[in-house]
Amino acid sequence: MKKSLVPRVVAMPSPVWVVGSYDANDHPNIMTVAWGGICCSAPPCLTISLQKTRLTYTNIFQQKAFTVNIPSTNYIVETDYAGIASGKNDDKFTTTGLTPIRSDIVNAPYVKEFPLTFECKLLHAVEIGLHTQFIGQILGIKADDEVLDQNGVPVVGMVKPMISSASDRAYYAFGECLGQAYYQGLKLVDKNKNETNSHSPSK
Amino acid sequence: MKKSLVPRVVAMPSPVWVVGSYDANDHPNIMTVAWGGICCSAPPCLTISLQKTRLTYTNIFQQKAFTVNIPSTNYIVETDYAGIASGKNDDKFTTTGLTPIRSDIVNAPYVKEFPLTFECKLLHAVEIGLHTQFIGQILGIKADDEVLDQNGVPVVGMVKPMISSASDRAYYAFGECLGQAYYQGLKLVDKNKNETNSHSPSK
Repeated sequence: MKKSLVPRVVAMPSPVWVVGSYDANDHPNIMTVAWGGICCSAPPCLTISLQKTRLTYTNIFQQKAFTVNIPSTNYIVETDYAGIASGKNDDKFTTTGLTPIRSDIVNAPYVKEFPLTFECKLLHAVEIGLHTQFIGQILGIKADDEVLDQNGVPVVGMVKPMISSASDRAYYAFGECLGQAYYQGLKLVDKNKNETNSHSPSK
Repeated sequence: MKKSLVPRVVAMPSPVWVVGSYDANDHPNIMTVAWGGICCSAPPCLTISLQKTRLTYTNIFQQKAFTVNIPSTNYIVETDYAGIASGKNDDKFTTTGLTPIRSDIVNAPYVKEFPLTFECKLLHAVEIGLHTQFIGQILGIKADDEVLDQNGVPVVGMVKPMISSASDRAYYAFGECLGQAYYQGLKLVDKNKNETNSHSPSK
């Protein structure tokens, strides 16, 4: 039986992404964002949502740039910390022991220890409510050699990204690979074609 | 060693969400979207990105409403099909055998067989490039009784949502739960406090 629930953000999954930015004094900061995702293929764009009170919010507006860093599962403590502490009263790079590297593409730092980074320039800011959505165009990508396949494509099993679920506020690993997109559904394409053909007066 | 990659949307993870909408003749359609995510907590909002050529794009602009349906892993074939076929020349509900139910909250259909649905009214449409981003405010949620815990919160292990990875265009299940958010990082909060205290002249 279906139950009606009060409107809440209990959809799943959400990515676990750590946003890198510089403040007005060029001091690097990281913040783990709750909400984000890819939002356009061409130009390649990402979106992250932030509350106005965050240091990262001010930094991105000032610098018009940020990085999205994808931590591996073994950085769960550092990642969670970057979502708890505020860069307004803590140097999160120092506390976590993570290393800021200046991007050569945009004016933002990335996290050396994380295997995959997207270097973004701010394209749009959309005021929604409690959160402002920043849309960033991906101008560059930095990846650890070890997480790339022979075609230079990041491999999930090597990146080991985390997933979060807003319903239980927990971190998860990727599980079993269930199948390829644009392949599983072909079974129904064939079924549909056969049925269309069998109903066709010309057959 | 870090490698620089050409800008591409190889970030991960992405949700596997099936969008329900009505056309101008009240005919229900579903489409699996590649890009989406939560984008605001208050009001609770979701975002999905669509190409202009899609029937769902036209439908959402006309109806100002859509649903986001979260399929369980056992609906991988139907879900993938809904991302391959076009509602312009196929009745995807009929081909997949899925059942459209009219939402009592917004003018959009949801998928009876999927455990969790978000009923959204269109709040913003943001033109980015190849994709247009639709921001929908969640006005209602429908959930199967069996996927809710005693507090009425959807449980990941019962919903069994799918995840996709843009780098390898594959579907994955949720894996191991790694820990709670706002808890794992407390180890570093304590460390930071202790270090601050030990440096304080008053101690």
